[in-house]
Amino acid sequence: MIKDLKGVTLAYDTEENCLVIVDQTLLPLEYKLLNLNELEDIFEAIKKLRVRGAPAIGAAAAAGFSALVNRINTSDVSEFKAQAERIKDRLKESRPTAVNLFWALDRMSSVLEKSLEESIENAKEALKNEALSIIDEDIDMCSKIGQHGAKLLNDGDTVLTHCNAGSLAAVKYGTALAPVYVAAEQGKKISVFADETRPLLQGARLTAYELTKAGIETTVICDNMAAKVMSEGKISAVFVGADRIAYNGDTANKIGTLSVAVNAKHFGIPFYVCAPFSTFDKCCLSGNDIIIEERSELEIRELHYTERKLPDEALVYNPAFDVTPAELITAFVTPDGIIPPAEIKRFLDCR
Amino acid sequence: MIKDLKGVTLAYDTEENCLVIVDQTLLPLEYKLLNLNELEDIFEAIKKLRVRGAPAIGAAAAAGFSALVNRINTSDVSEFKAQAERIKDRLKESRPTAVNLFWALDRMSSVLEKSLEESIENAKEALKNEALSIIDEDIDMCSKIGQHGAKLLNDGDTVLTHCNAGSLAAVKYGTALAPVYVAAEQGKKISVFADETRPLLQGARLTAYELTKAGIETTVICDNMAAKVMSEGKISAVFVGADRIAYNGDTANKIGTLSVAVNAKHFGIPFYVCAPFSTFDKCCLSGNDIIIEERSELEIRELHYTERKLPDEALVYNPAFDVTPAELITAFVTPDGIIPPAEIKRFLDCR
Repeated sequence: MIKDLKGVTLAYDTEENCLVIVDQTLLPLEYKLLNLNELEDIFEAIKKLRVRGAPAIGAAAAAGFSALVNRINTSDVSEFKAQAERIKDRLKESRPTAVNLFWALDRMSSVLEKSLEESIENAKEALKNEALSIIDEDIDMCSKIGQHGAKLLNDGDTVLTHCNAGSLAAVKYGTALAPVYVAAEQGKKISVFADETRPLLQGARLTAYELTKAGIETTVICDNMAAKVMSEGKISAVFVGADRIAYNGDTANKIGTLSVAVNAKHFGIPFYVCAPFSTFDKCCLSGNDIIIEERSELEIRELHYTERKLPDEALVYNPAFDVTPAELITAFVTPDGIIPPAEIKRFLDCR
Repeated sequence: MIKDLKGVTLAYDTEENCLVIVDQTLLPLEYKLLNLNELEDIFEAIKKLRVRGAPAIGAAAAAGFSALVNRINTSDVSEFKAQAERIKDRLKESRPTAVNLFWALDRMSSVLEKSLEESIENAKEALKNEALSIIDEDIDMCSKIGQHGAKLLNDGDTVLTHCNAGSLAAVKYGTALAPVYVAAEQGKKISVFADETRPLLQGARLTAYELTKAGIETTVICDNMAAKVMSEGKISAVFVGADRIAYNGDTANKIGTLSVAVNAKHFGIPFYVCAPFSTFDKCCLSGNDIIIEERSELEIRELHYTERKLPDEALVYNPAFDVTPAELITAFVTPDGIIPPAEIKRFLDCR
């Protein structure tokens, strides 16, 4: 049984036939591994954000699906297929908006379809290998983002980041934090200012946790302090992740990213968006086409103190994301290299 | 006994010889009046922020001093004077950095000195009148800021504000919110977006409370959402208060003000700083001369959830204020009128 994930956020323990994750709802207070091989446990882990971040959700769903299918005990091919189908459908209900969940399960489903032509055992083996591939590819893709991004960092630099687009959001490295980890691996001393990221405090809870665990000096600030640290000359570059990037380079990311980008521009600090190819969406022509999720008012009304609340008469506005226009973005850091916004269209057209 | 302050934050109940304040530490959950005429109670109320905001502290200290001196029971003039001196010294220890506290107590002290030449009764009467004057002057000064500022607001406008520089920080009207209150009195429909203002949430707790109590539509947002609402065209103007304004117009105010100012400039939204004369400091040539208080790390480390904490390894940076350069400020709204930053030096030199 895996007792230490050794720097990755999740793994597929093929000996014990388990998905292994860190329970992120307990971080930073407790580091607890969960070994999951029951459908409802895996469903709940994704739904309740015990594993979160688009790449990590995809990898967890793939490994979880393989582990569950591996336990199907029948020699009847159509019964096997029906049971696998039910598992897939249930897992797809866990996070209805996470694109990577569908992408990973559909990819697993195609492999199942093809490999089942030979035998059930063959299908189980093929699914196991596909899940391991998805995990490896995620690490490889983030590592490449890190290698390209690390070229932008010099020894002694200080990075500002917003929210958590680190290793906890992927299998390893993450997106926005990949350049920091790779630069550190190269022996550069890099320190980080982490916006706490209201309302859900992913910066304070997750980014500070994973960076300090990796031995990287991390200073947490309230979101409204980013402009001040920039004005003090403390920030060499900003690195953020992305939830969706439009054809013209406009970038949707966690609420507050726009404010950081405007301030970076004002203070002459480069602003980099780190993302895999799956985040670029050619069907969105510009940021205007990106629909922004509005989340529960309670995140703002009740989270700040347990015993305090806003006046009931006060309204609350709680957009989960904002769109940073391409003009505020210095460059995109992708697995294929560093691409300025002006070249994004050509880059997407050539893929 | 005063049971309702009717729209003011504090009063001097001369019949009962009490300072009457709203206990702001209980807001917004409970509106509780405190009738204070014991030295240690008044000292504690100022120290523990039951009454806060520079103008309010000055007015509370003046009324409290008068009430306490009025209770001195001696016909010996030098004994009377010695007791009054002890009261003043004790009150001065309550908030060592609040300039208005010293200003108000020194003004009361001069009146005492002069009026005591005639009789103790005369001194008590003079102090009572002086305290009432200080309270009235505060209302008058904020009302004038409001009248000038209201000219900048049209029916249907939406104001964004940061922290609390409203009536709770003064006797009535406040500074940044005075234009909103006066415009509303004039029959204009004004609504407000209030930044919650991390780490101590004065916007969520106090600004939202006083505005909604006054019937003004108020929407609370996290600080990092200000850029988004600006980008959506929702904001007509920004109004903030100030802690200190340098000779060149650079303005120190609650942390996060700089970020709001940079974003307002980027989105072409006017940014107004509302302040009484006492906030302008000719001895500070520029913002570089303003020393910024750094507050306890615990405000960031522990406040967000009672049961959660940052990782111990994470550092914290918690500056209480930032400096907004004059170039980002559209104009200062003062009791004497609306003054663009370029005219601040001349304005201060002529006073």
